[in-house]
Amino acid sequence: MSIRKGRSVTISDVAEAAGVSRAAVSKVIRNAYGVSPGMRARVETAIEELGYRPSVAARALRGSSYRLGLETPHINARFMGQIMHGAKQAVDGTPYQVILAPADGPEYSTLESLADGLVDGIIAVSPLVDTAWLENLAGRVPVVMLGRHDDPRGYDTVIGDDHAGTRAVMRHLFELGHRRIAHLTEPSPVTAPGSGTPHAIRLEVYRACMAEAGLGHLTHVARRHDNTVPATRAAAELLAAPEPPTAIVAGHDDIALDALDAIVSAGMRDRVAVVGYDNTDLAAHPLIDLTSVDQQGVEMGAQAATMLLERLQGRTEPRHYIATTTLHVRGSSIPPV
Amino acid sequence: MSIRKGRSVTISDVAEAAGVSRAAVSKVIRNAYGVSPGMRARVETAIEELGYRPSVAARALRGSSYRLGLETPHINARFMGQIMHGAKQAVDGTPYQVILAPADGPEYSTLESLADGLVDGIIAVSPLVDTAWLENLAGRVPVVMLGRHDDPRGYDTVIGDDHAGTRAVMRHLFELGHRRIAHLTEPSPVTAPGSGTPHAIRLEVYRACMAEAGLGHLTHVARRHDNTVPATRAAAELLAAPEPPTAIVAGHDDIALDALDAIVSAGMRDRVAVVGYDNTDLAAHPLIDLTSVDQQGVEMGAQAATMLLERLQGRTEPRHYIATTTLHVRGSSIPPV
Repeated sequence: MSIRKGRSVTISDVAEAAGVSRAAVSKVIRNAYGVSPGMRARVETAIEELGYRPSVAARALRGSSYRLGLETPHINARFMGQIMHGAKQAVDGTPYQVILAPADGPEYSTLESLADGLVDGIIAVSPLVDTAWLENLAGRVPVVMLGRHDDPRGYDTVIGDDHAGTRAVMRHLFELGHRRIAHLTEPSPVTAPGSGTPHAIRLEVYRACMAEAGLGHLTHVARRHDNTVPATRAAAELLAAPEPPTAIVAGHDDIALDALDAIVSAGMRDRVAVVGYDNTDLAAHPLIDLTSVDQQGVEMGAQAATMLLERLQGRTEPRHYIATTTLHVRGSSIPPV
Repeated sequence: MSIRKGRSVTISDVAEAAGVSRAAVSKVIRNAYGVSPGMRARVETAIEELGYRPSVAARALRGSSYRLGLETPHINARFMGQIMHGAKQAVDGTPYQVILAPADGPEYSTLESLADGLVDGIIAVSPLVDTAWLENLAGRVPVVMLGRHDDPRGYDTVIGDDHAGTRAVMRHLFELGHRRIAHLTEPSPVTAPGSGTPHAIRLEVYRACMAEAGLGHLTHVARRHDNTVPATRAAAELLAAPEPPTAIVAGHDDIALDALDAIVSAGMRDRVAVVGYDNTDLAAHPLIDLTSVDQQGVEMGAQAATMLLERLQGRTEPRHYIATTTLHVRGSSIPPV
């Protein structure tokens, strides 16, 4: 081991110390297929002994940053914690890290910026980004679209079974005897028919279930609006109606928490049922006690990261993963009075 | 405007179109001092018309990525949402973006990786990272340490006033008549005396207040442990004691939520007070109704990002910001029975 002091350690130094080719060292670093455990051990030992650290910027220029990026519209969405947790589990033991890029604004520029040499692959939660644009992005960097019921050629998708999940919610409420069931969801661009977003599907299934049950005339869709109408106010308006709903189906748990806030503030806790979606950690808290649909967010995150790693190792045909859903019935879904 | 099709737009093209020097274009892009509004407008118009986008990787190599990194030990810590929100507010209107790098493991490697050309500045929440190591890191990239009562030379700090905040909590509980007050906090490395972490200060002030009130013999410190003892179990053990505490001072709101979980599960909601710290969005929810200390997390995040931008524009002397605290009294801090 005769590395001159003051000179940066190079991949050739590692190869010489490990007694393997430079290509082999590169394979180990990229976590590529076809590396024997013995070769991996020798190379990793040499990397550690020599203190070799490939420059991230240099790797980015030649196409490898060892980072996966998770783009999400809102930093505070509780469901994203599950996704991130799963993605980090999936890259554990690989050279990859996961970073989070919250858009909180134009998703196109956040995605462009991630693709621009910052990460090797992107998990995106962008309900409003155009499909053709995504196909184009996916030509430059591997992309997994999370929560979009698309049928793309160039990228992978991971979705929950929003049809089954929403049908389970509606069946549960019908069985309890509810008829006047309102749906409190996201602003209309996110639920546009045909957009393939989870919230568009949930809205469509809500409408279909109401119609099938002969309750089409009681269909009532309320929405929060990003800056003008918080979900608490939208819920309060529902509750203030002459004939308020006896149950509120919330688009996700964060909205359900706001609905519970409005219900408690209106003194109607024992009169209005609430069901959420995502089964975030708070749903099971005894003070919240929220009935919610578990769509296996951790598994979805793990699948998405695994798909990116597969693409980075050469897979090109698209894969689509659908997570099954489970309804967790808790105290918030009381029968109508 | 005669840019040849198929050739990348360069900084020289922008300079020519705007009728300014390349250095001026660079200044506008770097958001540096000494750019007149008129020059900025001309350059930005040219950038937009030509579709100029400097390569992130190339910028990283020459020292500018236009990204600030927020390193945090846990992705799920609710307080981090406030910090991120403030940091994003502070960079709004600048060319900078904020990305989040959750460590969930060795913080040194996450910080190294951020410093390695990925970001231009780092906001770090790393209670266990060595001060000398941080000074060294700060020699390579601007660093703001969040929530460490250090007195560093090479980096900035943003902290809450943990002394005043904790004293306000203890005064409130004493005034309600509590004497058997327990403190439920983080694992011991994070609260090590002299470490300067917020949790070390809160523990120290808790002990001091108990001693000053002549209640030193009733001091009781319980801890969660990352993988073995969740805070719910640590709280349940406190409650199962022959003489359980009449009040629990939680290290932060996430621990307070777990304490409330244990208290409700033990059927002791009307017998044990809980106070949290951080005043996260859930504290005000009527079903949680948690007394908590607001330490202005959004302002802390905004200050931290602003400090990084100042350093990127040339400031070298360290700055230290202390956020004031406010106790929000809510239903969880009942008097002793």
